This record gives sequence, structure tokens and C-alpha cells, in this order.
Amino acid sequence: MTNEAQVRADDRAHVFHSWSAQGLIDPLPIEKALGSHFWDYTGKKYLDFSSQLVNINIGHQHPRLVAAIQEQAAKLCTIQPAFANDKRGEAARMIAEVAPDGLNKVFFTNGGAEANENAIRMARLHTGRHKVLSTYRSYHGSTATAITATGDPRRWPNEPVAIGVVHFWGPYPYRSPFFSANEQQESERALQHLRDTIVFEGPGTIAAILIETVVGTNGILVPPPGYLAGVRAICDEFGIVFIADEVMAGFGRCGEWFAIDRWGVTPDLITFAKGVNSGYLPLGGVIISDAIAETFRERPFPGGLTYSGHPLAAASAVASMQIFKEEGVIEHARMLGEDVIGPALSEIAAKHPSVGEVRGLGVFWAVELVKNEDKTPLVPFNAAGKDAAPMNAVAAACKERGLWPFVHFNRIHVVPPCTTSVDEVREGLAILDEALTAADGYTTG
Amino acid sequence: MTNEAQVRADDRAHVFHSWSAQGLIDPLPIEKALGSHFWDYTGKKYLDFSSQLVNINIGHQHPRLVAAIQEQAAKLCTIQPAFANDKRGEAARMIAEVAPDGLNKVFFTNGGAEANENAIRMARLHTGRHKVLSTYRSYHGSTATAITATGDPRRWPNEPVAIGVVHFWGPYPYRSPFFSANEQQESERALQHLRDTIVFEGPGTIAAILIETVVGTNGILVPPPGYLAGVRAICDEFGIVFIADEVMAGFGRCGEWFAIDRWGVTPDLITFAKGVNSGYLPLGGVIISDAIAETFRERPFPGGLTYSGHPLAAASAVASMQIFKEEGVIEHARMLGEDVIGPALSEIAAKHPSVGEVRGLGVFWAVELVKNEDKTPLVPFNAAGKDAAPMNAVAAACKERGLWPFVHFNRIHVVPPCTTSVDEVREGLAILDEALTAADGYTTG
Repeated sequence: MTNEAQVRADDRAHVFHSWSAQGLIDPLPIEKALGSHFWDYTGKKYLDFSSQLVNINIGHQHPRLVAAIQEQAAKLCTIQPAFANDKRGEAARMIAEVAPDGLNKVFFTNGGAEANENAIRMARLHTGRHKVLSTYRSYHGSTATAITATGDPRRWPNEPVAIGVVHFWGPYPYRSPFFSANEQQESERALQHLRDTIVFEGPGTIAAILIETVVGTNGILVPPPGYLAGVRAICDEFGIVFIADEVMAGFGRCGEWFAIDRWGVTPDLITFAKGVNSGYLPLGGVIISDAIAETFRERPFPGGLTYSGHPLAAASAVASMQIFKEEGVIEHARMLGEDVIGPALSEIAAKHPSVGEVRGLGVFWAVELVKNEDKTPLVPFNAAGKDAAPMNAVAAACKERGLWPFVHFNRIHVVPPCTTSVDEVREGLAILDEALTAADGYTTG
Repeated sequence: MTNEAQVRADDRAHVFHSWSAQGLIDPLPIEKALGSHFWDYTGKKYLDFSSQLVNINIGHQHPRLVAAIQEQAAKLCTIQPAFANDKRGEAARMIAEVAPDGLNKVFFTNGGAEANENAIRMARLHTGRHKVLSTYRSYHGSTATAITATGDPRRWPNEPVAIGVVHFWGPYPYRSPFFSANEQQESERALQHLRDTIVFEGPGTIAAILIETVVGTNGILVPPPGYLAGVRAICDEFGIVFIADEVMAGFGRCGEWFAIDRWGVTPDLITFAKGVNSGYLPLGGVIISDAIAETFRERPFPGGLTYSGHPLAAASAVASMQIFKEEGVIEHARMLGEDVIGPALSEIAAKHPSVGEVRGLGVFWAVELVKNEDKTPLVPFNAAGKDAAPMNAVAAACKERGLWPFVHFNRIHVVPPCTTSVDEVREGLAILDEALTAADGYTTG
């Protein structure tokens, strides 16, 4: 068998894939990756406009990060969480240093789901309350509490599983759940809706509000001015813990260390994963306010995992943070958003009848596709099979031209690595521009 | 600052530790590790009789495993789960090859908790039922469903969080929950108790029975003859999925690939983590029967994670499996249990009035300490602070002599790496023998 055939054979015989009907998929074997590109076994090269699962923030196979992993592997791969370890402490310190003031401790996990599970646990024990409020149009992970907090269809077949989650509506100016006329009104009405929900759920029963600072997979929904500050004020008023899920939005994706820096708001807990080390090793965590850390000073925190603060994963985070700082990765991502992607997408929107809205910041953008001026989504919500054909056509047109897109419902997300060059971004956007012609064919005017 | 002082300072200022009151701990900084030993910054060397958290099955810093990680890091650290990848497929094939017949697919996770979460999800959707039965005296992880399935005090402060778990009692001949006179009776009565529980919970409501094949942290409880075959028969009779949690017991720990091999029983799902790659990278997973995989052939499996089948983690599993095979690790672990640890612990039990029972297999043994012939535990269940003094005295006596023990409630677990040499094991057992004198001082005859 060729290498490719062997990879396919092993995969089809033995690998059970996430979120899939195992018999209806044909996973493409990938041979190698570098920077903003990856290659299949036929030698076909793809520009990675998905950053895999929006996690390769410093690009594939960054030589300094690879070297740091190799060096730490030679030194010490792992030691259990009860010990102190140099890289574990250094990673925690470096993360605390870039986090908002007053968030100084880090609880490490293996990924984002566990980060949200533990943040919710901390909030419940800190407040002595049980309910968690999270939004429709959100994704928080696939373990029991995380999937219950999720506000998209991935939750449905898993219910009922965890208790105590209540969903509310977040702001979405383009399709306002509050019938708003503009961003300011959207922000005010979304806050009024949140406050009303709290009042009717019982303020004294609510431990936490869990929101993606910028909603990721469910639409790259950038909060309108005043919304996050308003959530902070509501949390303060009712003694509720504000958990900012920055698993996707953090570590450069929004052109900031943390997306919430853009609005100058300080949450009580920040959950992270993905971009912290570009997923070179599994790593996630919770950044904890001093007040919540104090709750667990003499009272044991009842959660943990074998690989919490894994030295090899921590070393990859340390190196990644150094790369962010020394190579100006965050500034580059911000520049890409302001000077390249934003303006180019506006031009694309003006040109294609299928583009209803473009929105985003940094390297975190959505192109929302519609059928007509009434904003009817180009494909129905949660479409599959034949219903999803228009989006599949756009995706196929991208892939044919060597661009790997991120597609979700009726949206194409433009989420390349933060380190993608201006030329590469322009090349990818030019391909997207062409591919969107396929979507235009499905519009009804 | 010295290196050690820096490690301590970073740790105390920024690392939030698992299962701990953050102000009441003083984590020991560890500088390096090799084989069955690790060293603190004063140069003090410890023989690792805990395998960290019972996961370093091939010992610390195995040169072949380190080299494999370095090589894969240079090639491809990560690619998202929807693609096919050589190491992902190879790891899955190698695991399926050593798993019981009929279990041929692997869903990879980052650790044991997520493995159990996903196994339960599979069982629920496969059966269309919701309840899960698990035992008191068990640990299954710290995410919402996993901690709810857990049958030890770590669950308490987390409740209520997930729904649908019912706890029953497993066999424990030394302290029979069924008032049995011998192992055979314990097995029969435990099965009767399980059957009664099922009948009263409603067989048609029960998706899965989740058990640790050999209970780990909660006592190294080896199932008496006939028990596992009986569980299998009950599952078949009522259409219940049998999930064997082998996160701690699998991959050599019991002198077998999977502990359940010892009894020739085939579960429907096996969950694993820890020993699969000795925790050099975070990795876990579920091994899936053909029948359950078939359920998800045309129906999507509603679970996933960014790092499922992580190439670098998968490469470490491939290398680890090769080491197991080529270096006879599993046979060595079995031999250590039969020829060295078992006989030596029997001698220790005969000598020390504080030792109530020794039990185990492979490199998975418990020394249960008691006050008197009535089997009163040397410390109360779930003891902390002053109540735990007798166990702390034994632990301190071990550490003073360069042995790092695994202590849980009134037990010392003897759980060195599978690769520990006979001489090292004898050295550790000799230290334990001396240290137990401290326990003898607390007996009351």
C-alpha cells in the first residue's frame, strides 16, 4: 500500500471521528503543514483559512515552538499536578501577566471544555448558587456541563445531561433578537433582556453568566459598544460571576491578548485553550480573579485532572507566548483585520448579492450569506445533506482553488493564522471572492 | 533567586492546584526524573512508588518515547480531527489490535474524564436509555458526568450537576458490603445486588454499567472470580452497555494489556488514558465495539474535541505501544506482581499488626492499614488534618527514606512503573516495611 492508502485504511478501519456519521465521511489524509499551509498526499497545497479548528494562531510547525517542545521533551515530559514545576509556574505567570488586572492564578486543563466545566464549578462554589446563564448561538465544549451550556444544535442529542443552565439571547445586530434599529439600541435591549431574565430566574440563584466575548463558531458576533460593560455592571449588581469564554477569541485571534481587552472590561474568570499554544499540545485553563482564588485558600477546590499543568504542554505555552511577544503576532493580527481583511471583505460584500453582512476583527471574520434582501439565510439553520448544497458549493470552489475554508451554517469564516502574511491573506480573499460566485447563483434577488 | 526559589515563587503566586486548598499546600519543586526516580532541587532522589498519578507505566523520560515525540514534533504537531493522519490511524489500529475481539474503533480524547463522558454518551444513544449505574468506591474523572459517576467524596461538593447516575455496591471481600464469608459468595451476592438494583431502577431505563475493571484509587479492589463474567451476562440479559473503565488499570498496570483480559471478559466499551502513553502527552480515549460503532454509521455522533486524535499525542502512544511490545513491559509487570511484590507484601502483612490486608496484581497493589483485628481503619473514611496523622506519619517515614508513596485514606498503594527493576522494587518495599512501623504505633491491638 502507498502511504496515503495506509493512512486511509487505518483511519476508516479504526478511527472514530468527532461530530460525524462514521460511514458518511471520507477524511482527507494530510501529509504535512507549514506556516499558513498544509498539503495532502497528492501534493496539493491548501492555504489554511480555518487555522484548523481556529486554533493554529501562530501557524503550523513554527520552528521556535517545535524546538521548545523538543527541548522540554528531553528534559521532563510530565510530573503530577501536586508538585511545583518550572514550566508550569512560568506559563501561569506569563498568562497572568497579560490577563486583566486582578486575575492572577491559572488552573490548567487539557482543553476548553474542561476549562468551562471548572470555571462553572468555581463560580458555583464561590457564590453558593447553582444556575448558569449562557447564550443561544454559543459553543462551550462537549463534556456534560459544557455541552449543556452550549447554545447550538450540538447540544440537542445530548440532552438532558447536566442541570442548572438557562439560555438567554445575546446581541446580534444583523438579525436582532430584540428588533433593534441600530447597535446602540441592540446593546441596551440585550442588557434589558438579560436583566429581565435574571429577575425572573431569581438573582440569588444565579452563579455565573458565561459568554463568549466574541461569539465564535456560531457567527463571530462582535458585541456592540457598551454590551460587555453592561454585563459587568449587571454581574456586580447581583453578585454574579462573569465568565468570559475566550477559548477561540483569545490569544491573538481578535488582535488582542484577550478579546475583552478591546472593551476594557474585566471578567472574574477567563477560560482559554486553542491559541494559547496553537494546539501543538492539548492545553486549556481558567484564569482566576483574586476574589475567587481567595474562596479556595482554606477550602479545597473539588476538581482536578492527571495532566493539569502538564510540563510539556506548559513549555509549549511559554514558547508560544514568547513568540507572540517577540514576533509581534498580536499587532500583526490586528493590522490584518483593520488594513487587509476588513476592507477587502467590505469590497466583496458590495460585489456579491449573496453576501448579507461581513463582520469581525483581527483574524476573526464572518461572511454571512443570504438569498435575498430579506436576509433569508442561504441555507436553513442547521442544514444538512441537500439543504446544505449552496454552502457545499462555495466550500468546494474554495478547495478546488487551494483554499481551506471554515464553513458553518450559512457563513464562511475567515480565520487564518495570526501570522499569515498580507500577500497570503490577499491571495485567500481573492479565491473566496471567486468562490462566492457559486453562492450568488443561489440568490433569489 | 535560585532556580528552586523561582519555581516556588511562580507556583505560589500563579498556579491553582487540583483538589487543594490553595493556601494550605506547599508543592515540592521537582527538577528532573528518569526511569523509576525523580529528584527535587536539593538533589534528593525519590523512588517513584506512585508512578506520579499511577500513569508513568514505562517510567520517566524513556529515551525511545522522548525521541518519538521529538521526531513527530519536527514533522507535524497537530492537525484537526476531521482529517486523516498517519499517527492517529496507527495508534488507533495498534490499540484495536490489543483490545478484546470485536472492539475495533477508537475515539480519542485528552484524558480519562472525557473518555468516560463520551463512553456514556455512546451508550445512551446506542440504547436510547438514560441511566448509568456505577459503583461506590470509584473514580471516573472530574467533568460533570464523570464526577457524578464517581463514587468517592470528590463527588460531594460538586453535586448536583449531572443527571441519570445511580450508585450500587461492587465486591470488596475484605469489607464485604454483602456480609459474605468468602470470595465466591461475595461474587454471587454482588451480582444479586446488581441485578436487584437493575430490577428496581427499571432495566429498560439503564443505558450502561460503568465499572473500573480493578478499582483504582478507591482501594485496588480486584474483582473476585466470576464477578466480571456475571456483569457481562447481566448486561446481555437486559441490553445494557458494559463500560470497563481502564484508565488506571489498563496498559500494563495489571500485567495485561487490559485488566479485563485477566478474566477473559469482553466489555462493549473500554475507556483508557494514563498508561497508554505514560502521560508524556495528554491522551485518552474510548475503544468501541462493532455494534456500537454501527449505531453511528449513518447517524452523527454528537461529541468531539479540538484535539481528538492529536498527532503528537498519537505518536507518543504508537511509540509507547512499541516499547510495551519490544521491551516486554507487560510481562515484566506481571512477573513483578507474582514473584516480587505479592510475596513481599505477604511477608510485610504477617509482620505488621497495622496491615489488615494486602491485595493486587501486576504493579497495582494496596496495603490496607487497620487499628485492630476488627479491621477498624487506621484513619477514618475521608480523614483530613489531625485525623489523618497516622497515614501522614507513614508517608513522611517513606519520603524521609527516599520513597514517594501513594496514600489514599487508610491505604498505601504500591504502584511503581511497570518497568521498575526487581532490585528497585525490593528497595522500595524494604523502605515501606520500615515506614510501617510508624503505623504499628497507632494500632490498638
